Amino acid sequence: MQQKILTGKDIAEHNNKDSCWVIIHGKAYDVTEFLPEHPGGSKIILKYAGKDATEEFEPIHPPDTLDKYLDRSKHLGQVDMSTVTAEEKALDPDEEARQQRIASMPGLDQCFNLYDFESVAKRVMKKTAWAYYSSGADDEITLRENHSAYHKIWFRPRILVDVEKVDMSTTMLGSKCEIPFYVTATALGKLGNPEGEVLLTRAAARHGVIQMIPTLASCSFDEIVDAKKGDQVQWLQLYVNKDREVTKKIVQHAEKRGCKGLFITVDAPQLGRREKDMRTKFDDVGSNVQKTDADAVDRSQGAARAISSFIDPSLSWKDIPYFKSITKMPIVLKGVQRVEDVLKAIEHDIPAVVLSNHGGRQLDTAPSAIEILAEVMPELRRRNLQDRIEIYVDGGIRRASDIIKALCLGAKGVGVGRPFLYAMSAYGEPGVVRAMQLLKDEFEMGMRLIGVRSVAELGPEFVDARGLGMHSVPTPGDSLSFDVYDRLVAPAFAEKSKL
Amino acid sequence: MQQKILTGKDIAEHNNKDSCWVIIHGKAYDVTEFLPEHPGGSKIILKYAGKDATEEFEPIHPPDTLDKYLDRSKHLGQVDMSTVTAEEKALDPDEEARQQRIASMPGLDQCFNLYDFESVAKRVMKKTAWAYYSSGADDEITLRENHSAYHKIWFRPRILVDVEKVDMSTTMLGSKCEIPFYVTATALGKLGNPEGEVLLTRAAARHGVIQMIPTLASCSFDEIVDAKKGDQVQWLQLYVNKDREVTKKIVQHAEKRGCKGLFITVDAPQLGRREKDMRTKFDDVGSNVQKTDADAVDRSQGAARAISSFIDPSLSWKDIPYFKSITKMPIVLKGVQRVEDVLKAIEHDIPAVVLSNHGGRQLDTAPSAIEILAEVMPELRRRNLQDRIEIYVDGGIRRASDIIKALCLGAKGVGVGRPFLYAMSAYGEPGVVRAMQLLKDEFEMGMRLIGVRSVAELGPEFVDARGLGMHSVPTPGDSLSFDVYDRLVAPAFAEKSKL
Amino acid sequence: MQQKILTGKDIAEHNNKDSCWVIIHGKAYDVTEFLPEHPGGSKIILKYAGKDATEEFEPIHPPDTLDKYLDRSKHLGQVDMSTVTAEEKALDPDEEARQQRIASMPGLDQCFNLYDFESVAKRVMKKTAWAYYSSGADDEITLRENHSAYHKIWFRPRILVDVEKVDMSTTMLGSKCEIPFYVTATALGKLGNPEGEVLLTRAAARHGVIQMIPTLASCSFDEIVDAKKGDQVQWLQLYVNKDREVTKKIVQHAEKRGCKGLFITVDAPQLGRREKDMRTKFDDVGSNVQKTDADAVDRSQGAARAISSFIDPSLSWKDIPYFKSITKMPIVLKGVQRVEDVLKAIEHDIPAVVLSNHGGRQLDTAPSAIEILAEVMPELRRRNLQDRIEIYVDGGIRRASDIIKALCLGAKGVGVGRPFLYAMSAYGEPGVVRAMQLLKDEFEMGMRLIGVRSVAELGPEFVDARGLGMHSVPTPGDSLSFDVYDRLVAPAFAEKSKL
Amino acid sequence: MQQKILTGKDIAEHNNKDSCWVIIHGKAYDVTEFLPEHPGGSKIILKYAGKDATEEFEPIHPPDTLDKYLDRSKHLGQVDMSTVTAEEKALDPDEEARQQRIASMPGLDQCFNLYDFESVAKRVMKKTAWAYYSSGADDEITLRENHSAYHKIWFRPRILVDVEKVDMSTTMLGSKCEIPFYVTATALGKLGNPEGEVLLTRAAARHGVIQMIPTLASCSFDEIVDAKKGDQVQWLQLYVNKDREVTKKIVQHAEKRGCKGLFITVDAPQLGRREKDMRTKFDDVGSNVQKTDADAVDRSQGAARAISSFIDPSLSWKDIPYFKSITKMPIVLKGVQRVEDVLKAIEHDIPAVVLSNHGGRQLDTAPSAIEILAEVMPELRRRNLQDRIEIYVDGGIRRASDIIKALCLGAKGVGVGRPFLYAMSAYGEPGVVRAMQLLKDEFEMGMRLIGVRSVAELGPEFVDARGLGMHSVPTPGDSLSFDVYDRLVAPAFAEKSKL
Repeated sequence: MQQKILTGKDIAEHNNKDSCWVIIHGKAYDVTEFLPEHPGGSKIILKYAGKDATEEFEPIHPPDTLDKYLDRSKHLGQVDMSTVTAEEKALDPDEEARQQRIASMPGLDQCFNLYDFESVAKRVMKKTAWAYYSSGADDEITLRENHSAYHKIWFRPRILVDVEKVDMSTTMLGSKCEIPFYVTATALGKLGNPEGEVLLTRAAARHGVIQMIPTLASCSFDEIVDAKKGDQVQWLQLYVNKDREVTKKIVQHAEKRGCKGLFITVDAPQLGRREKDMRTKFDDVGSNVQKTDADAVDRSQGAARAISSFIDPSLSWKDIPYFKSITKMPIVLKGVQRVEDVLKAIEHDIPAVVLSNHGGRQLDTAPSAIEILAEVMPELRRRNLQDRIEIYVDGGIRRASDIIKALCLGAKGVGVGRPFLYAMSAYGEPGVVRAMQLLKDEFEMGMRLIGVRSVAELGPEFVDARGLGMHSVPTPGDSLSFDVYDRLVAPAFAEKSKL
Repeated sequence: MQQKILTGKDIAEHNNKDSCWVIIHGKAYDVTEFLPEHPGGSKIILKYAGKDATEEFEPIHPPDTLDKYLDRSKHLGQVDMSTVTAEEKALDPDEEARQQRIASMPGLDQCFNLYDFESVAKRVMKKTAWAYYSSGADDEITLRENHSAYHKIWFRPRILVDVEKVDMSTTMLGSKCEIPFYVTATALGKLGNPEGEVLLTRAAARHGVIQMIPTLASCSFDEIVDAKKGDQVQWLQLYVNKDREVTKKIVQHAEKRGCKGLFITVDAPQLGRREKDMRTKFDDVGSNVQKTDADAVDRSQGAARAISSFIDPSLSWKDIPYFKSITKMPIVLKGVQRVEDVLKAIEHDIPAVVLSNHGGRQLDTAPSAIEILAEVMPELRRRNLQDRIEIYVDGGIRRASDIIKALCLGAKGVGVGRPFLYAMSAYGEPGVVRAMQLLKDEFEMGMRLIGVRSVAELGPEFVDARGLGMHSVPTPGDSLSFDVYDRLVAPAFAEKSKL
Repeated sequence: MQQKILTGKDIAEHNNKDSCWVIIHGKAYDVTEFLPEHPGGSKIILKYAGKDATEEFEPIHPPDTLDKYLDRSKHLGQVDMSTVTAEEKALDPDEEARQQRIASMPGLDQCFNLYDFESVAKRVMKKTAWAYYSSGADDEITLRENHSAYHKIWFRPRILVDVEKVDMSTTMLGSKCEIPFYVTATALGKLGNPEGEVLLTRAAARHGVIQMIPTLASCSFDEIVDAKKGDQVQWLQLYVNKDREVTKKIVQHAEKRGCKGLFITVDAPQLGRREKDMRTKFDDVGSNVQKTDADAVDRSQGAARAISSFIDPSLSWKDIPYFKSITKMPIVLKGVQRVEDVLKAIEHDIPAVVLSNHGGRQLDTAPSAIEILAEVMPELRRRNLQDRIEIYVDGGIRRASDIIKALCLGAKGVGVGRPFLYAMSAYGEPGVVRAMQLLKDEFEMGMRLIGVRSVAELGPEFVDARGLGMHSVPTPGDSLSFDVYDRLVAPAFAEKSKL
Repeated sequence: MQQKILTGKDIAEHNNKDSCWVIIHGKAYDVTEFLPEHPGGSKIILKYAGKDATEEFEPIHPPDTLDKYLDRSKHLGQVDMSTVTAEEKALDPDEEARQQRIASMPGLDQCFNLYDFESVAKRVMKKTAWAYYSSGADDEITLRENHSAYHKIWFRPRILVDVEKVDMSTTMLGSKCEIPFYVTATALGKLGNPEGEVLLTRAAARHGVIQMIPTLASCSFDEIVDAKKGDQVQWLQLYVNKDREVTKKIVQHAEKRGCKGLFITVDAPQLGRREKDMRTKFDDVGSNVQKTDADAVDRSQGAARAISSFIDPSLSWKDIPYFKSITKMPIVLKGVQRVEDVLKAIEHDIPAVVLSNHGGRQLDTAPSAIEILAEVMPELRRRNLQDRIEIYVDGGIRRASDIIKALCLGAKGVGVGRPFLYAMSAYGEPGVVRAMQLLKDEFEMGMRLIGVRSVAELGPEFVDARGLGMHSVPTPGDSLSFDVYDRLVAPAFAEKSKL
């Protein structure tokens, strides 16, 4: 059926919640009925009702989104873009300042560690993108604990070992890799770089590093698989949909495309509240009109309903056999947080688990993976189960010394997520390549300095982890005595030169 | 007897401590003899001697105050208000700035958690009202510990449990409620909002939440009861008066009006010193004249005497039978702070206690309720007494995760006080409604994320509370080495753009 | 022999280290030979060589100093002061600012706690005086630990005790006092107030508080004793002189004048280095000429020698019998710092010790007295020696709750020093009176709130002191992750009013 | 062979990596082939290609460097310096500000402790020199822990001991010294002062202190030995070269010149990454051109290769007999970090070890030496091996009290490094002399105040070291409650004077 070419005026008439049309990549869509289903809320769509929404749509939806989620009958056809009035962009001083910063950003060779990428990214990324990547649940205590927990572990280096040659390669789920970390799954890669997750794929290829493909990627699954080189290893991260047929299709397609592992996310029956992200979004779409009515009560239910169609909160141990029945990929539980559930995973013949709190984005004051690891391994060893399951950890890793600590404590490998997103957001693929190289350099040095030659040698005797498990919260100080205390100072320089 | 209509001039003549008349709501009162009895001190009254004191009087006294505490002979009758010279208000730059802030305050939908209300309230409330609500005893160490103690408790979440439906309802003292918190008693609600505590009543009704009515409310007890809807549950908080007949009247009236519990405050034989409040009041009524005489000595005795008429410092375990004799309401001790006293309560057949340090307003470096709870429950279980008494806690709760932690550790429910006052002060009833909704949203998510479906499932296996009981005070740092340390910095951006 | 009246010109000729005359209170003195002996160094005297030194001399020397330490032959007689050119004072912007601050200082009734006096004193005292009072040894870690150690102790309050009447009186060394603290010995009272220590005596009299008279007072010993009222109790603090006859004279004179206890300082075989004080003095007397020669080596020996004439570093247990032989006053060791030495004191039949680190002015990272107390008492009880000796503590006490904690842990009483100096420096005698009253108010409230009626009831069951003994030094944070972390913020107010 | 006199123009033609000549001290050198070997990277040399590099070369290379490392054929001979165009120095505002600071720096007598030298040095040293001296590995956590670990140790002072005479002398490796510290080896002394390490030699002589001569000194080994006075004791620190003949020559030469100990560095199979240093160097030689290519990957390998020629990463226990075969000096292992390796050293008949983490410059989160010491000594005593080996510690020592703590815990002596470099950089030799004197003054006072008369008396009973081994990392605070908390404040002064 030949569709007529629509004009800007046609679209502009459907600019409200009773009839809402939007233009994306030169085509019009009727999204009126979809409004209440939109996981991101209807507000953000209504902002573009009757207008071109491409720029906003692009970074946060894979290319096949409209085909997948909007009935063909709502695809209204081509728009003559010459008839669409270009939106006059309000002069945005924040955006101007950001462009200035981008123009003066430091060279890639000035980044000496993973924080450096984060620091640059924070200043050159769009505020909303930064907020989405960097935010955590509630007070972001777990988010930060994930990192600082590693500072509770100290080395016990060994000396006078011949470390001229050190070998940092290992295997994960049977696949070889050059260094014991993998790129873990993180959503919406195009928020940081228009090319999205394929950049991570390419960088991982250069370094012999495994990549876990996220369900919520900005690139489509196939784009990411297409980007791999040679026998590069990829895994699939899976949010289980209420509709098991949808899930089955995803899983079997991934297996066919060569994925070597299925990582089922088990720490997100409901997506966490990330207030930094919420506050930033509000600035974007909210108005400043002071509302004091109680409609807040209803809104939250809308959000809950929307999410339930994507992630199934009823997922339970009973579903494990089903997954085994639909795939031969090793099934890994991602998001295990207590030793009891590791033991249960072994009972279910699960070959590996990821100890993880979802990067601090789900439940605040959930413990760090490294702390859980320190509880899990002794219990497994006590039961002689340490060889029955591979244990991975993620969250908070910023130095290769963190990776070495995790391996000493019994991890088979670790997942690194945000740091590569930041490197990609700031410097694209070369940023990720350099970030991985820095980890390799640090890793090699770390092995030498604790006196080991291979990953297999790493063991608990090289660390003092007694500090883990201590959650110290200092007694609040009294401000009166703090304020009145007269600090010691260094000798003063004369105010004027004696020359 | 027909009283003559008084004029502003008549009143103005009685403007000192030897003869002190004031106008309140258009009527004149002779308060000369009452001056030394006034719990707030005589100074604050003398400021209005011979003048209209309505505006100052209103927020901090229930409407029936003058009838209750001032002999009828001192009620001097109507004043012709047209003859009263309106007080010319000094231009107050602080108040102007506050009005500006009120005009630009954030919308209610920008409040995502309970701190947000507090932050807005701090900036839009009158300084004196803020100081009264927010202050604590001495150095406010306990005030803050109450909150930070929850950060010593970490979750041990369970995965792969079907949490599609979660039920957060429970019962307290036999009454059903939708979620395991209640609005605890806090004084002087009109300082925050001219309507006072009835706003809390109405919000509680919308959420199926129990309210505890304070002895020192700004609204009268009957106003608060009248505001309840249907079978809404209310409790009475009681300061025991030296005159037991006064107390008896209050208690029996409350029972008749349907209160379902009597919470006797046992942590306040004397009201605490809150220096932030004292300092703010001083600014208000004090002069800047430098006094260095020693009259300070006498003043404090005045305060002690005044208070003794309101709260009976001789209250003891011996009085418990008396209370049982005058009411059938369950008697609850509010302010228990050691396991020995919980055991004693059980011996006295007390059905419930509230572990509480009075919001950090009484004794500084008293421990947090949650820490006491962690000591109490194991002892009760050891003696198999855990079902003999319901344990409540209050103080420092700001997140639903705090409530979940308290329930895991054995609490039947928790009291939330200041956060609702702040929500009310900033946004009125809708503020409180939203605050409660946020707690419900957080609570539901929290249950899902630790893997439980009902309140009854919550137990100690879901938390790591080893950090409680550790009162860490870091060794003072040496400022010389701190100052000389040259922090690492992120890569610098060029000062000028390269564009 | 009639001495001739000297003129300013006569004096002015002796203005160097070979012949150094100074005027004090209208009389001339030849101090040439005394220069190398001066404990404060010769520099400070030479600054006034040939001039009137009264203003500098006055606050730091008791009136009888010249008689005691300078041979009569060096007393040159009266000076005709009209012939002495008044020193033109350089305009000192610091001093002007201080005078401004004095003119605008807060009223005494605005001081609600002991820190408040300290805060006012810091701003109204001369910089050198403040530095002398407030400084501690080395990095002042012990100085601050003394205070913060009390925050490691938490209360376990008891409820439902009749506390209408509470009695805070007690006895120390057999003398009654109204409250269990005493004014401990501190040097150079006139630095803070021209009247000096007698102000403390008078304030102590008003409150029924015991005073310990310092060896290094600015007032003479007799002035301080003359200031006492009725049966007011005073003790003597003693630095033991190398010349035992000097010491014997002091001790026996004190006994004759009615002193009820002899507190021998045992923690100061050498006076500590207080760098804040040194740095301030340097500013005062030092020049800014850059010296890089090595004469520093010699100077320090000068200081060591000077001090050795005042304090005997050879003082040891062997001297105890001597002191018993020269006085009937109870002999108390002030500055005991380990349980072994408390046991040794008992062996020597010493009736009391003061656990003290000299207000943090001697050895840095010496533990707080309260921590030592928590080690001492269980050991004494284990050996059933707890009634053989009275234990006092001092250092860091700022709240009556601190005193209550010390008594709960077994102290008979506590010494308070600097806070009264600060109160005196800021507000004179009324300041000290108010400071003591504030402690009494706090003490009374504290007793009520933990549920005790008398000092004798205080015991270890009212405190949780498990935190003592833990010297936690947090792991240094990594500045890179700290800097890059994007803190959560409260909702923003609109920049412009919506009015 | 007569070499012709070269001109500036001759040199200037060789200004790139294909042909790179430089002038040093008036002579020309062809360093083209050496470029890839240069441990500091080729970039820094190329900056001076075709130019006079003396100023840059001087401070970081001993005078005999060119003779040792550059083949004679590359020594091109004299340059007529009058023909060399003087480099016009760009006006550098940082350098100007530094010169200003030098002109107004405080006098040496204003330095009262070791931090003071550091504080002055930080402000008067060149940025690159400061960065080299002050930097540590990775996040510099170990760098700072080295110092702060001493604050975990508290004294238990003894009283009433005759301490009139105290003796702080001791022996190390059989040599007498006046105080139990030695000047440990630190590289590149001329960065701080043009005279370099000989200043440390001379200052050590004045104080009877042993000096350890660094392999990487700016002065040549012989210069440093020539500077010693009388029977002054020196030791040799050794980085073991891959070429054992080079090493043998160094060792045997040192023995011949009278060195009394051979300290083999065992904690540096690869030199650590010091990012502060890297970042500063980058500023110096790097351009601001934004590079985002991935050449970073290759560069790091260049660095690794360069280093391997200086330090042999294959050094192991098997090499110990070799060292014993080439020298009679006692062989000491510097950089031992675990008790197992101390035991192994004893098995190899090593007479002493230095517990050290290389000043926090090698492996971050390696523990402090003092913490390792606290683990080592009890284990040695348990096995009755405490007299079989001398234990030294270094790192973080800033106060004599730190030294006393180390000796109490069992160290024979301690190494002090950076503080003397800072004293030298700020004030030259007199600075170092004064720094040592300050340590002596502090040491003498510390002995008196803990009640000991000789070094031999120091033992574990004088310290409470329970805090060591606790690596406390506080739980991240929640910024929302922190921000909203309204701190208590001291009484305010009136804004305007009441005068």
